[in-house]
Amino acid sequence: MKTLRFGFIGAGFMGKAHAQAIRALPICFPDLEVDLQLQAVAASSAATAKVAARRFGFAEVEEDWRTLIAREDIDVVSILTPNHLHHEMALAAAAAGKHILLEKPMAMTVAQCEEMEAAAQKAGVRTMLCFNYRRTPAVIHARAVIDQGWLGRPRAFRGRYLQDWLADPDAPVNWRLAGSSAGSGTLGDIGSHVVDFAHYLLGDIDRVSAMLRTWVAERPSDGGGRQAVDVDDEVMCMLEFANGAIGSIEATRFAPGRKNDLGFEINFENGSLAFDYERMNELKVCDFRSDEPDFKTIHLGPRHPYGAHFWPIPALGMGYHEVKMIEIHDFARAVAFGEAVHPDFADGVRNQKVLAAIQASAGHGAWHAA
Amino acid sequence: MKTLRFGFIGAGFMGKAHAQAIRALPICFPDLEVDLQLQAVAASSAATAKVAARRFGFAEVEEDWRTLIAREDIDVVSILTPNHLHHEMALAAAAAGKHILLEKPMAMTVAQCEEMEAAAQKAGVRTMLCFNYRRTPAVIHARAVIDQGWLGRPRAFRGRYLQDWLADPDAPVNWRLAGSSAGSGTLGDIGSHVVDFAHYLLGDIDRVSAMLRTWVAERPSDGGGRQAVDVDDEVMCMLEFANGAIGSIEATRFAPGRKNDLGFEINFENGSLAFDYERMNELKVCDFRSDEPDFKTIHLGPRHPYGAHFWPIPALGMGYHEVKMIEIHDFARAVAFGEAVHPDFADGVRNQKVLAAIQASAGHGAWHAA
Amino acid sequence: MKTLRFGFIGAGFMGKAHAQAIRALPICFPDLEVDLQLQAVAASSAATAKVAARRFGFAEVEEDWRTLIAREDIDVVSILTPNHLHHEMALAAAAAGKHILLEKPMAMTVAQCEEMEAAAQKAGVRTMLCFNYRRTPAVIHARAVIDQGWLGRPRAFRGRYLQDWLADPDAPVNWRLAGSSAGSGTLGDIGSHVVDFAHYLLGDIDRVSAMLRTWVAERPSDGGGRQAVDVDDEVMCMLEFANGAIGSIEATRFAPGRKNDLGFEINFENGSLAFDYERMNELKVCDFRSDEPDFKTIHLGPRHPYGAHFWPIPALGMGYHEVKMIEIHDFARAVAFGEAVHPDFADGVRNQKVLAAIQASAGHGAWHAA
Amino acid sequence: MKTLRFGFIGAGFMGKAHAQAIRALPICFPDLEVDLQLQAVAASSAATAKVAARRFGFAEVEEDWRTLIAREDIDVVSILTPNHLHHEMALAAAAAGKHILLEKPMAMTVAQCEEMEAAAQKAGVRTMLCFNYRRTPAVIHARAVIDQGWLGRPRAFRGRYLQDWLADPDAPVNWRLAGSSAGSGTLGDIGSHVVDFAHYLLGDIDRVSAMLRTWVAERPSDGGGRQAVDVDDEVMCMLEFANGAIGSIEATRFAPGRKNDLGFEINFENGSLAFDYERMNELKVCDFRSDEPDFKTIHLGPRHPYGAHFWPIPALGMGYHEVKMIEIHDFARAVAFGEAVHPDFADGVRNQKVLAAIQASAGHGAWHAA
Repeated sequence: MKTLRFGFIGAGFMGKAHAQAIRALPICFPDLEVDLQLQAVAASSAATAKVAARRFGFAEVEEDWRTLIAREDIDVVSILTPNHLHHEMALAAAAAGKHILLEKPMAMTVAQCEEMEAAAQKAGVRTMLCFNYRRTPAVIHARAVIDQGWLGRPRAFRGRYLQDWLADPDAPVNWRLAGSSAGSGTLGDIGSHVVDFAHYLLGDIDRVSAMLRTWVAERPSDGGGRQAVDVDDEVMCMLEFANGAIGSIEATRFAPGRKNDLGFEINFENGSLAFDYERMNELKVCDFRSDEPDFKTIHLGPRHPYGAHFWPIPALGMGYHEVKMIEIHDFARAVAFGEAVHPDFADGVRNQKVLAAIQASAGHGAWHAA
Repeated sequence: MKTLRFGFIGAGFMGKAHAQAIRALPICFPDLEVDLQLQAVAASSAATAKVAARRFGFAEVEEDWRTLIAREDIDVVSILTPNHLHHEMALAAAAAGKHILLEKPMAMTVAQCEEMEAAAQKAGVRTMLCFNYRRTPAVIHARAVIDQGWLGRPRAFRGRYLQDWLADPDAPVNWRLAGSSAGSGTLGDIGSHVVDFAHYLLGDIDRVSAMLRTWVAERPSDGGGRQAVDVDDEVMCMLEFANGAIGSIEATRFAPGRKNDLGFEINFENGSLAFDYERMNELKVCDFRSDEPDFKTIHLGPRHPYGAHFWPIPALGMGYHEVKMIEIHDFARAVAFGEAVHPDFADGVRNQKVLAAIQASAGHGAWHAA
Repeated sequence: MKTLRFGFIGAGFMGKAHAQAIRALPICFPDLEVDLQLQAVAASSAATAKVAARRFGFAEVEEDWRTLIAREDIDVVSILTPNHLHHEMALAAAAAGKHILLEKPMAMTVAQCEEMEAAAQKAGVRTMLCFNYRRTPAVIHARAVIDQGWLGRPRAFRGRYLQDWLADPDAPVNWRLAGSSAGSGTLGDIGSHVVDFAHYLLGDIDRVSAMLRTWVAERPSDGGGRQAVDVDDEVMCMLEFANGAIGSIEATRFAPGRKNDLGFEINFENGSLAFDYERMNELKVCDFRSDEPDFKTIHLGPRHPYGAHFWPIPALGMGYHEVKMIEIHDFARAVAFGEAVHPDFADGVRNQKVLAAIQASAGHGAWHAA
Repeated sequence: MKTLRFGFIGAGFMGKAHAQAIRALPICFPDLEVDLQLQAVAASSAATAKVAARRFGFAEVEEDWRTLIAREDIDVVSILTPNHLHHEMALAAAAAGKHILLEKPMAMTVAQCEEMEAAAQKAGVRTMLCFNYRRTPAVIHARAVIDQGWLGRPRAFRGRYLQDWLADPDAPVNWRLAGSSAGSGTLGDIGSHVVDFAHYLLGDIDRVSAMLRTWVAERPSDGGGRQAVDVDDEVMCMLEFANGAIGSIEATRFAPGRKNDLGFEINFENGSLAFDYERMNELKVCDFRSDEPDFKTIHLGPRHPYGAHFWPIPALGMGYHEVKMIEIHDFARAVAFGEAVHPDFADGVRNQKVLAAIQASAGHGAWHAA
């Protein structure tokens, strides 16, 4: 059995999600034939890292992320930090010859992303960007249905990611609301997931026309007083795909009542697919060639992609945990056995280009090549 | 009791809907105090008109719509014909001093609409444009909730009208698919209803950015052979409202599985509203100020707008019939008692300007003032 | 064309529903070839009848229902009165040789029902009992799917009728809450509809085991003070069908949040059907033999039973009005052309026997033959 | 920090679920202050146990479950075996002074359950029965809403557990379909969960009236040929609660299209609660005292019971895994800190008595005390 030793940089929400997935993998994927080890963790402070190590089960702690990357006993560096740190960390990891699992969005600019991609290529390391939602079993099944071919040519993609956790104007500023640490607001944080869905399900995007809005211009600061919000709160855009389909994307954290409404509807020549992450164990499929050309609500279960690895009964309930497990499973296989895996850094560049095109279009008000 | 004598031009789907509503009005609105009479009908042929007269209950038949308009015993002319006829007929009706109930969209161009509006103004006749869906009780209630004020400023409007009856590429051409009779395709036919929702619920639209597509370029012709389709099959657009909100509109007749999915979701500072005509007896309301800021699914019933006129139990089921009854009721009151009523021809001009701006924007690829 | 002249006894909610349906029938069913006329109406008072006549469009008014029945120019008597009057009125109508359209439940006792059925048989008049919900297009379609045969043997029927309009303990007593006028409470008023669904979809019921409850023992009286409620507020029961299937029925007017939740789910060997009247334009069908044995949500439309008589687009919205139209259409055809129609008085006897068995079982606590 | 060393008997579906939960607990419940260790495992064969040990992370393997129970380094015995083994194993574990986590249903008979409960009492060990679904966050929240008091007295409970995995008549017999190993069929396997919901949410059940059916009398046997099915395939029953409420329970594995439809609706004086495990991250709540007495669909998240232990965003998706984590967390706290925990063996006796009463009632056809 091969061994992959993970070093985490970051120990927050994502650190928790990754660690839990790694610890559960041998239980749910006994045939993986890769031994995943939580080797070392670095975080925003040594104290945080120590707490995380004990909680998540890491063997060791590093005070400095550079030292962690330099360790010989690390095979994979999981970069789970705010966006503005991705570039520097990924370059360092690549230089050290480490495989890289990187949380999204990839970086602050297309130039940074391209540099990271080139560095990874040069170093010959495997990379993966954590657009984890495309690993929701229902979404993987959507792709499988598309690959069956009967749907015919795609015509329209409607993607959305609606949340409401910023609708309270007195919610304080955090790093996701500062341009210096996040690069963009809703666009990079959640809009990028919808762009990833579009890429995963329908392929390349040729150009976009977009608008951005900031609804709450300043918010309470942690240090007291108020701080300006310099990122977008909402994005709407239109798309043209290379395959001739058109689409729209909307993302906001100001949609009262929508908690994690990440979804899509895609119309094809011969049918449609619809997904809503708030009901992530369901996929709606319409076969327009049938006698009753309406939507069937499929409950994901053991017959569907990856389902047999979890529970033996459909609708027993998979959640975010299982999504993360699939993600790390796929990356582990890619690294250990040389299998292809997406989204990698090249896909991340492609994603970032769409985000940049959206920002550019929102600035000048016309279509912009992606 | 006042009397309003109706003359219909047109006896198809809309003739049926209007006639049934008029016949049912005294039963459901006994306090209306207006006696509505089906006086005369003209149609595409005298034979069609005769059949319609017997079926719908008209007292008399006219072979020529001009003669119908000229009759002294007609108070209201209901123009229920294909779009390209609206302009000429409305001008004639106004010239004859008749009140006008006009099916949508208003006409082929903004110039036509403005001429019609000016003619009606000059003649002092009342007008109404049949964007009937805004008279769905749930939609009227949505407007009432907005008028309560607690929702605060609107931020985002997502409107859609998705059908699938043209997804079959062998469906034959009809007048709705020819530019010469329809002016536009999906845009005017169903997209105009979403524009009307936007106007009704959020007010003026400043500008739009849009794209149009024709998915099936030619279709079987009634006369055999195939005929080019010269109108749009799908529209996507983005909006800026005068009040600062943004929005998107999508309309298509190529969404397999969506039958009459006319809907909206609107996010406000303090809550959201969501509606789907396929479940037209429900309105979803989120009050973000409550302890559980989620959506409540309200079943429309006698406590809600117009509900007491129909059935004594919520969810007993109102449908398209009741929507049409409310429409004609409101217009009858407007004519008989001088009450305000919308959408009138001025609103129709406003609607057509948005449609024209969408077409312009789709042509040049940038934002266009509405 | 044949003519059927209707005389109504009763001019309340049901009078309104019947009158509106009759007036709309020639519009929606132009091929009916029967001319339905609103000939005369009697009501609880002459004044009420006069108002109703004007509102509903009756040619004449009768002060006394007996006089109405005696008129030579009446072909059909529509008995739309509280339950305790059904027996006497139906006997009189049969004796006068009139066809009878009777609102449900049929009468106060099985003996009354049997007497009514015998009288109608003897007089050779056609009868129909207004369990109108079985004429909801989605329910007719459910029956059509069963008749296709592929579902195989039925196993389990779950029927329910949940409302909440009596959950307010201060809602005043009305005739539906008094044993002397209603015979039973929830059981006869709404439970009988579920029994009718069971009969319509699965056939004869052999025996039942039931419980009844009265939740609010006394209520405000119209005349001031409080009045005891001597009927049931809720019924639960289990069923055995003659075909070997089992089932349950629940009916209540004390289910907060359920407005008109009349529904069923039926499991068969090879599939399932599910219906909820609150979304009456949908039927859920599961074909267990398919690759994805999940439910498809069918939107009723012109392709389905009676759909082409209403609107040309699925999901445009049919409601209670259309259900009543189908009901009267079917009865008119039965009378005019001798076609079979159900539920007739024989079906009403069968229904009442189940209601009586439920009451008996609830009394002695064991199974009771239906 | 206290330490709890677990010994598992059984390494199938439930072994996997328990092991994964235990391994994830320190990550999601860092404040638990109990160190849970996977000490040893026994299974149906030594080979199975060895595979499980490696896969699940156990330190050691025991060939014989009796030896496992006898180990001094085991604090908790998790009995995850077919039903007919529960009695003997639990008695042995209690005799050895081990705390017991026992999968449901408790045992084969009430007498067995009572003996087990007495043994545990005498030994002074803590016990828990794994009716895990009551630990679904939405169900815990339902209970919390009940405990708020505003709902008033309960009136009606409708519980169901519908699956379809046995609807295929050629599905082979397994231990769940043999009376000798399962005791009952659907009743104990899934019906018992609904009984547990009833107890958890509404308290004691006084008596029941029930029916049982076996739909497929014989099935393919693993050894070739066919084997008789001697357990129930479907149960329907009616309930009377000690608090005056009534209820119904239905459970089947023959409901095509229903995958894991475990749910309830409860009507109270002032509102209702509704839950469907297939959408386990939602709870529907109706407050009948509000202006719009309809259901609100609450998305469970960090504000709700246990939610902050998982993900920071509502609707990010909890599943079966999280349910199991909460279960083991609660039991660990009970053992380590002496906190109360339910359902314990006393609750299991209560549950088994209802199952026995259902079987008895189904046999003699009348009400039976629970």
